[in-house]
Amino acid sequence: MRYRKIPDETVRRLPTYLRGVLVLSEKGLKRVSSKRLADLLGINPWQIRKDFSYFGDFGTPGVGYDTLKLQKRISKILRLNSNHKAVLVGAGNLGSAVMAYGGFSRYGLDIVAAFDKDPKKIGKKKNGVTVEDVSKIGGIKKRKVDLGIIAVPVEDAQVVADDLVKAGVKGILNFSPRHITVPKKVKVISIDIAMDLARLPYYMSAG
Amino acid sequence: MRYRKIPDETVRRLPTYLRGVLVLSEKGLKRVSSKRLADLLGINPWQIRKDFSYFGDFGTPGVGYDTLKLQKRISKILRLNSNHKAVLVGAGNLGSAVMAYGGFSRYGLDIVAAFDKDPKKIGKKKNGVTVEDVSKIGGIKKRKVDLGIIAVPVEDAQVVADDLVKAGVKGILNFSPRHITVPKKVKVISIDIAMDLARLPYYMSAG
Repeated sequence: MRYRKIPDETVRRLPTYLRGVLVLSEKGLKRVSSKRLADLLGINPWQIRKDFSYFGDFGTPGVGYDTLKLQKRISKILRLNSNHKAVLVGAGNLGSAVMAYGGFSRYGLDIVAAFDKDPKKIGKKKNGVTVEDVSKIGGIKKRKVDLGIIAVPVEDAQVVADDLVKAGVKGILNFSPRHITVPKKVKVISIDIAMDLARLPYYMSAG
Repeated sequence: MRYRKIPDETVRRLPTYLRGVLVLSEKGLKRVSSKRLADLLGINPWQIRKDFSYFGDFGTPGVGYDTLKLQKRISKILRLNSNHKAVLVGAGNLGSAVMAYGGFSRYGLDIVAAFDKDPKKIGKKKNGVTVEDVSKIGGIKKRKVDLGIIAVPVEDAQVVADDLVKAGVKGILNFSPRHITVPKKVKVISIDIAMDLARLPYYMSAG
């Protein structure tokens, strides 16, 4: 089955929908209405119906959407229907939190290796993964890793990004509050915790 | 000056613009073109020009936008032109990373207190802030705190959210991979690290 071209804004909401659908599936729900999903995710029900209309109309009025079908459809569009391997660079507080975070496997993501430059951290185990010397990061090429997570201090972020790209990583989740430069074919998503906190006051006064 | 109603999608991009403008201002740039900002942020230049058109046309063709004016305008719209106080609950790995993160003050945000229930953490200092007993969280009411950051294990997230709301917090940044329920007047932004990583494969195969 071919889908109509899905607009960027809709794609941006898909992971949020997937998260909601997974939460409801895990609770045993087989069907969900756009209203219920809307309440859970804080998105307008009409927006949800419009977004879902782009990838096939498997919702039934008055009955709702099939959660399992939704989950499979969205996973497929997001290319999460096959597994992806990720490596973490930086095993400090943030890196340790990422390792302990869990919830990656539900999206088909595995953190298979962790690296640091600090001899005190190398060799330590974090959630079943042993921290390796960052100088050996090139070795991940053989392990078919396609995702990298940067959780190092800001001054090391670019060097680590370069190393990850050299090692064949195609996507980077960047926690350092700094813009990193990578070749066009590599996709970067940056998480700036301070900026996320800075989003709140607008909505606080609006409500 | 009154602005036209700014669409939600534009508002959602404003913190990203603010971040970019701050980075360029800190480098000493007085003017920036939509093209330059586009390259820095990975947003289309036409999208930037369209978004900026909602809050006054202070860009000059061929010269660009005044970075300081942009910064002030966006800060004002986002209600970041006055300071906001935040508290952190959960001083584990993630909480410690948040405290060490820095970069909050650039948005006018201050983390003024941190709480935990673990006696081993209470009394310890993290980036100049002493971790207090979470049972005393009600005390923040007097300190005019309006933001809360939840960095506790998933099973404690809802209780902490309830405590924060009772203590008068109007906005919550939730790091626990769980939906928390709060009164309508309180705004929640959730950060799900696993979900952010899950966004990458779509763009990797598209590029």
